[in-house]
Amino acid sequence: MRSTLLPIAILVSIVVALPSLATVNEKSLQNAQQLRELALRSHLGFDIVESLTVEVGPRLAGTAADARGVAWAEKKFDELGFDKVYKQPVKVRHWERGAASAQILSPFPQPLAITALGDSVSTPKDGLVGELAFFDSVAELNNANPKDVAGKIVYIDARMHRHLEGKEYSTTVAGRSIGSSVASEKGAIGLIIRSVGTDKSRMPHTGNMRYKKGVTKIPAGAISTSDAMMLMAMKKRGQAIKVNMRLDTTTFEPTTSYNVIGEITGSTYPDEYILIGAHLDSWDEGTGALDDGAGVGITVAAAKLIKQFKPKRTIRVVLFANEEGGLIGAKEYRDANASELHKIKLAGESDFGARSIWRFDSQVNPANLPLMSQIAKTLKPLSINQGDNKAGGGPDVSILPAKGVPVFSLRQDGTDYFDYHHTANDTLDKIDPAQLRQNVAAWAVVAYLAAESEQKLLPLIKK
Amino acid sequence: MRSTLLPIAILVSIVVALPSLATVNEKSLQNAQQLRELALRSHLGFDIVESLTVEVGPRLAGTAADARGVAWAEKKFDELGFDKVYKQPVKVRHWERGAASAQILSPFPQPLAITALGDSVSTPKDGLVGELAFFDSVAELNNANPKDVAGKIVYIDARMHRHLEGKEYSTTVAGRSIGSSVASEKGAIGLIIRSVGTDKSRMPHTGNMRYKKGVTKIPAGAISTSDAMMLMAMKKRGQAIKVNMRLDTTTFEPTTSYNVIGEITGSTYPDEYILIGAHLDSWDEGTGALDDGAGVGITVAAAKLIKQFKPKRTIRVVLFANEEGGLIGAKEYRDANASELHKIKLAGESDFGARSIWRFDSQVNPANLPLMSQIAKTLKPLSINQGDNKAGGGPDVSILPAKGVPVFSLRQDGTDYFDYHHTANDTLDKIDPAQLRQNVAAWAVVAYLAAESEQKLLPLIKK
Repeated sequence: MRSTLLPIAILVSIVVALPSLATVNEKSLQNAQQLRELALRSHLGFDIVESLTVEVGPRLAGTAADARGVAWAEKKFDELGFDKVYKQPVKVRHWERGAASAQILSPFPQPLAITALGDSVSTPKDGLVGELAFFDSVAELNNANPKDVAGKIVYIDARMHRHLEGKEYSTTVAGRSIGSSVASEKGAIGLIIRSVGTDKSRMPHTGNMRYKKGVTKIPAGAISTSDAMMLMAMKKRGQAIKVNMRLDTTTFEPTTSYNVIGEITGSTYPDEYILIGAHLDSWDEGTGALDDGAGVGITVAAAKLIKQFKPKRTIRVVLFANEEGGLIGAKEYRDANASELHKIKLAGESDFGARSIWRFDSQVNPANLPLMSQIAKTLKPLSINQGDNKAGGGPDVSILPAKGVPVFSLRQDGTDYFDYHHTANDTLDKIDPAQLRQNVAAWAVVAYLAAESEQKLLPLIKK
Repeated sequence: MRSTLLPIAILVSIVVALPSLATVNEKSLQNAQQLRELALRSHLGFDIVESLTVEVGPRLAGTAADARGVAWAEKKFDELGFDKVYKQPVKVRHWERGAASAQILSPFPQPLAITALGDSVSTPKDGLVGELAFFDSVAELNNANPKDVAGKIVYIDARMHRHLEGKEYSTTVAGRSIGSSVASEKGAIGLIIRSVGTDKSRMPHTGNMRYKKGVTKIPAGAISTSDAMMLMAMKKRGQAIKVNMRLDTTTFEPTTSYNVIGEITGSTYPDEYILIGAHLDSWDEGTGALDDGAGVGITVAAAKLIKQFKPKRTIRVVLFANEEGGLIGAKEYRDANASELHKIKLAGESDFGARSIWRFDSQVNPANLPLMSQIAKTLKPLSINQGDNKAGGGPDVSILPAKGVPVFSLRQDGTDYFDYHHTANDTLDKIDPAQLRQNVAAWAVVAYLAAESEQKLLPLIKK
């Protein structure tokens, strides 16, 4: 009997112990729960965003304000007692916005609230006058007869609606990113788009665009959604609409910005990294509170709170340079650290505002899914559900899975994110401190439990 | 018995018939109910505001756009078949806004969203540089030692909160209206106020102000509420704050604008007027949809809908010139019509946005209170309650009770009115067509029933 009873007892004890043995130990789990409750009472995340938006404000890559942002980040990491603080140079374009204005000249004169798209060339000093050629989307513009476009200012009225996941952004944004090139190839002299935004307001949304190689660079701006609605009501009245658009922009020589990095050194595996981060740069009209001051506050505060629990692996917080220019700092980070990327055991970026997180996704080696489930269980009291294993990881981090780096996403409620995105209205007052705290708690839990994993954290399986 | 029964029968029939005999007849009441239901299905009010905001847009008194607004109003009355359309000249100031910008220079440089207050003088071309002297209110500034103000730019941080009745406006607005004079008298070189608004946004609120006679005119602007919150957070950091403010404004020679008047002639008492109206002018940054395009749409549509019921008294719609300059058109209307004011039997202005009406107030001769109660009864299905007999009547109409003219107020929900008031964000998309229809229905009921009154409509009793 003993000989049969003993193996059963061993089996039972293994099964009972499995969840903690397989993922994190009991003490780590208790720490994670304590960390979560601490974070829910901590004002640190908000204080960090306030400090960034008040003491630096807008910080468009390449500008003097961007340099102040870099200095701010180094100082903030130092003040908070990070073990290691350093920066990594990133070559960035340097473009600055001057004044912008537009008017309908006929049939019914009135001003339009407009902003230049990022990297747009200037109009002539007295403005660019032209009749509008109307399109609902870039797709429709693509099919247009050049005769109907040549010599005109193309107007694209692509609309976007509020959505928890911000779903329509990726489809609507084409007008902004490639509209000017498509319009130019058909002979247009300028581009105006309806702002890529979900608000009803006079706040135009700027954003990145790029001229195709060899294309004649035409000035490109966005009018506010309120102006877009007015313009479409005017169009219904049946007469040709002539506008004057004045955009004043300057393109300088490329310059150097920096990814700023702060680390809490791991107590057991200092050479294994849990990378969390956000981007430090912002557009130039708001103070970049939601995009991405919130992400800075959330991830820096999470790491700082983790420190007292002496994580086994190193927590590396990367504040990326020039995300808005097209993941410029992230690409530099990936390339400069090419030989060391295997040391990054899990990575995630917070870059979707400051609303509550509702879902936790991962993209990890299947062998590490039990750890993800343990993390999800610990996130549950924050009203966060486990999603799938197809996470993108956040814009700057999204290029790492191709190199085998596992990533995770803590998905925020994005319902009103595109009301403020890339506008002057992206300011601190849009952040609800309680929701920000929930974010800090979630990021602290994920980063800490990953740092404490008893499982080996494996690279992604190549597809 | 007969001799005693007959008087009783007569008495009973009088009492039973009293409500209609004493106020309006049964047919009029049925018409009013039909009118109410018609108005609730009519898109006319919204169409009128759309027409005004799309075809004219902003229409600051004295500008070319204001003249276009006057022409639009005459044409609109004509198109809608008003029996009599005419205008009355009004001498108005003519001030125009140029560019406005401001920056914090130290300790933490960043831009501020600013707008010039109406009638402000310009700053020097390169801006006015000064340290900020902080005050919570004009009252606090009044008590300040000139030593603490001289040579500085005064900043007034008076705050305003959302309220159904917009209650805090009248107390908060002092900083805007007289702040520059008080600051100047203490030796300040400029004034910046926190916008008189209830939003959290980067939209500064402009508005009327006036320099006291003999005072040194200093430039005066308003920063957005978001900037005000940022500025106060910066102030907490303890260092002196230096700003540069650039306001470019032009004061022209006074010019002529017009009150535009349309009438539906009364079938029985053409010489007795029920005056309803709104103001035609608007501030220059929005399209004046809420302030006061909505009032124009509501009252013009109400009168047009009444026309088919052939009202006994004349419905006179007055679209006042230059309300924003300080009831300029209204004062001209009062003075030019001094000998005829007794013919105005009831008056009211719609000028508080486009949200639903929740209360009906009057200020009438007590003899006419039964009519007011009958009107209130007919408004009841619109979820409007009867209030008191202390109505103001609306800004332009508020100066008429002193001349004996009875007035009424249909009070709108003003909860978010001061989110948009006097900003670029006062645009058509802020109007909910269903709530606007409720307004049209209520105005049609009041104006029509007053026009149908079987009671003599008496002047106010002199106090």
